[in-house]
Amino acid sequence: MCVINVALFGCGTVGGGLWQILQEERERIIRRFGVEVNVAGVCVRDIEKERAADLPRTLLTDDPSVLLSDPSINVSIEMIGGEREALDVVTLALEAGHHIITANKLIVARHLPALRRLERGFGGTLRYGAAVCGSIPVLKIIDETLTVDRITAIRGVVNGSTNFILSRMAEGVSRADALALAERSGFLEADPRADLSGADAAQKLSILAAHAFGVHLPPERIATCGIEEITDLDIARATSRGETIKLVAEARIDSEGTVVLEVAPRVLALTDPLAQVQNEINIVELECERAGVQRYTGPGAGSLPTANAVVTDLLDLVASDYSSAGRGLLVEQLRPWSALIAA
Amino acid sequence: MCVINVALFGCGTVGGGLWQILQEERERIIRRFGVEVNVAGVCVRDIEKERAADLPRTLLTDDPSVLLSDPSINVSIEMIGGEREALDVVTLALEAGHHIITANKLIVARHLPALRRLERGFGGTLRYGAAVCGSIPVLKIIDETLTVDRITAIRGVVNGSTNFILSRMAEGVSRADALALAERSGFLEADPRADLSGADAAQKLSILAAHAFGVHLPPERIATCGIEEITDLDIARATSRGETIKLVAEARIDSEGTVVLEVAPRVLALTDPLAQVQNEINIVELECERAGVQRYTGPGAGSLPTANAVVTDLLDLVASDYSSAGRGLLVEQLRPWSALIAA
Repeated sequence: MCVINVALFGCGTVGGGLWQILQEERERIIRRFGVEVNVAGVCVRDIEKERAADLPRTLLTDDPSVLLSDPSINVSIEMIGGEREALDVVTLALEAGHHIITANKLIVARHLPALRRLERGFGGTLRYGAAVCGSIPVLKIIDETLTVDRITAIRGVVNGSTNFILSRMAEGVSRADALALAERSGFLEADPRADLSGADAAQKLSILAAHAFGVHLPPERIATCGIEEITDLDIARATSRGETIKLVAEARIDSEGTVVLEVAPRVLALTDPLAQVQNEINIVELECERAGVQRYTGPGAGSLPTANAVVTDLLDLVASDYSSAGRGLLVEQLRPWSALIAA
Repeated sequence: MCVINVALFGCGTVGGGLWQILQEERERIIRRFGVEVNVAGVCVRDIEKERAADLPRTLLTDDPSVLLSDPSINVSIEMIGGEREALDVVTLALEAGHHIITANKLIVARHLPALRRLERGFGGTLRYGAAVCGSIPVLKIIDETLTVDRITAIRGVVNGSTNFILSRMAEGVSRADALALAERSGFLEADPRADLSGADAAQKLSILAAHAFGVHLPPERIATCGIEEITDLDIARATSRGETIKLVAEARIDSEGTVVLEVAPRVLALTDPLAQVQNEINIVELECERAGVQRYTGPGAGSLPTANAVVTDLLDLVASDYSSAGRGLLVEQLRPWSALIAA
């Protein structure tokens, strides 16, 4: 049986969820893929901090280079967050020939072309299914099920924090109270500006558009308006007309063939599927030439939904035959059905 | 460059759409996968019937054995419909060592375990993403993104014909007129019983449950009630209470751990996401332990949406490395991103 040695960078919300899933599902992964996923090390900022009870302290290190230089490690998983430190880890891991999985939308949206060059240069694979809309496998759907279709437009509610706030305000809660409630419920970052300004949504839109249209537009270049200026009166007016306001990320091909990206609050009819998605739930709508209008909804964040998306990336790596990348990850062919028939 | 020789069985609505996509996207598939998909033959009942103008008549045959015995053919695609004839083609193709793709929910739902045994016995792969909910890649999502999650419940509106009829009735159209309208709009089969009785929905539910729960229950054993008995008065009553009636396919694990499957008309609040899906659109809702509640909507049938799902299965085959199955389908590793970076 193959063993895949995995290094985790960061062990907060997502990292903790990933550790939990990998422990709980160890046997199931072995049965299904013939591969043992072994966490060979966990790099954290503070090795003294309390962690999951079953996380052996011997796995912990605060020195990334220990894991990045370990020749037995095949896959690095970056869940640090932020930009500089995370980008360093992803870059160094790719340069070390690792396959790398990240949940970090900021570094992917900003640095995608450079990271793809590293991927090609060193033979590793970069995956980031968890970076956009948490539990919704929208990048995989675009890449693998709309492969030769043409996507003509994307609309989405892709930021859970602002959607939580707007959902409360639509119920009549004041803006100030809705913000406080979002903070208490854990739906706002310590620095909420990236959510409220639309920057977080723009990062996700940048990645979505790259997959759907094959063009990389850094989030800074996306026309972005957040919900900072949305007042109680705006919401009351919309409600009185049977409408609601959502922060909508939108990408479309205009009549001249140019891809146009925009993040802005939109007044939507209550019958619009985007208007019906409440709280921290995300929705992505794809208009396709052949597959018609597709819509996907699910939790856009959270420990286990996001960690499950990281596991999907990891198992996609396992299911691929990495012999050509020289990483010695050869495993038996994916046979998702064998379990069923044996039963 | 590799060539994959493909045999089409049936060239009606789905087959015609598939032919069109394969012609229009030939170059794109070559660029992306380094593989040319070549339609080596098309088996039809009536070779005299009018076909797409660009379908060479030399490709046509009315004798399946011509294609099934051709050693140059790697993949057979069954789009005949019905049961006996389609099952024969799928069985013979698997016995010939072909990979086989089918859009036929009836034969998959009824004969899945036997087909899986043939798959294991002869080394071919059976795929049927188009058999459930047309454009919605729900089987792929279950298999590849919820691989080690646990699905606890499925609910869906998975039959477009009955949803079209119930959508009209909810607008005040009489049952008789709604049926006539569905027929005129092409949403009813020549024999509409499988739709109206819920049998079609039960077939899809059987396949969904097999993937989600790993148990095969033939559709005949699923408790099924259709919409034959739904009257104008039933709909009027629901409407007057702010509710609606949908034909819901449901699978869940009960408190004793048993998988319970049922197809029946349900009275739903208008706020229920299943109530909001109109006309021929399908919705599938998955309750997952980790990924939360996921919902997917899209066209459940139609020539191009269904044909696109067949293409997805075909390109998944191409992207896999079939060296282990001895089919000589070795292709370069799937690199969906190379196009972007080259641009």
